[in-house]
Amino acid sequence: MKVFHYLDVEGQLAGEGTEGVTVRWLITKEMSAKNFAMRLFEVDVGGYSPLHSHPWEHEVFILEGEGEVVGEESSKRLIAGDVIYIPSNEKHQLRNTGKSKLKFLCLIPYIKK
Amino acid sequence: MKVFHYLDVEGQLAGEGTEGVTVRWLITKEMSAKNFAMRLFEVDVGGYSPLHSHPWEHEVFILEGEGEVVGEESSKRLIAGDVIYIPSNEKHQLRNTGKSKLKFLCLIPYIKK
Repeated sequence: MKVFHYLDVEGQLAGEGTEGVTVRWLITKEMSAKNFAMRLFEVDVGGYSPLHSHPWEHEVFILEGEGEVVGEESSKRLIAGDVIYIPSNEKHQLRNTGKSKLKFLCLIPYIKK
Repeated sequence: MKVFHYLDVEGQLAGEGTEGVTVRWLITKEMSAKNFAMRLFEVDVGGYSPLHSHPWEHEVFILEGEGEVVGEESSKRLIAGDVIYIPSNEKHQLRNTGKSKLKFLCLIPYIKK
């Protein structure tokens, strides 16, 4: 069993079309979690991830801050406690529209069904 | 894409050896999430899950409250922001040792590798 605080995991720039986004890889296959990974993202005020899609799904939980999730045709406001399920191959973008950091967990599969 | 607040999902008693534990199944295979499920647990003051093990791993993130995670040989205090990775077949128990509800996310795989 591994127990640690998320702040003990170093953040890295998320890169690739993001603006003001850092990611901490909290639980990964390197610690034997072979099925899915837990990451924590922090988005600066005004920051965003790219509007993109990919073959794997996202399971997201908003921890702090305010933002919006942008889809193919519409967007929706986000607050702490919101849950987002983004199926595979569906376009999505997360934006910080608030006045403090937007923090969320985003989990992805290692193996796809 | 599905976006909703966790409070919009009804809680149910977790049952089976738990005391004062409710669970909300937030993201499940019923919404096409075939790889892993996101659940949110709330543990009353003094409540706990059973000390048990099973063939699937847990990926846990502590949202609110204080508690401890008990393992085979030791226990560790938990605060908000703590991350727990419990490998498959490893004994574990979560207890609320604080003065308010303990809330955490606990994700499990549908398919096991």
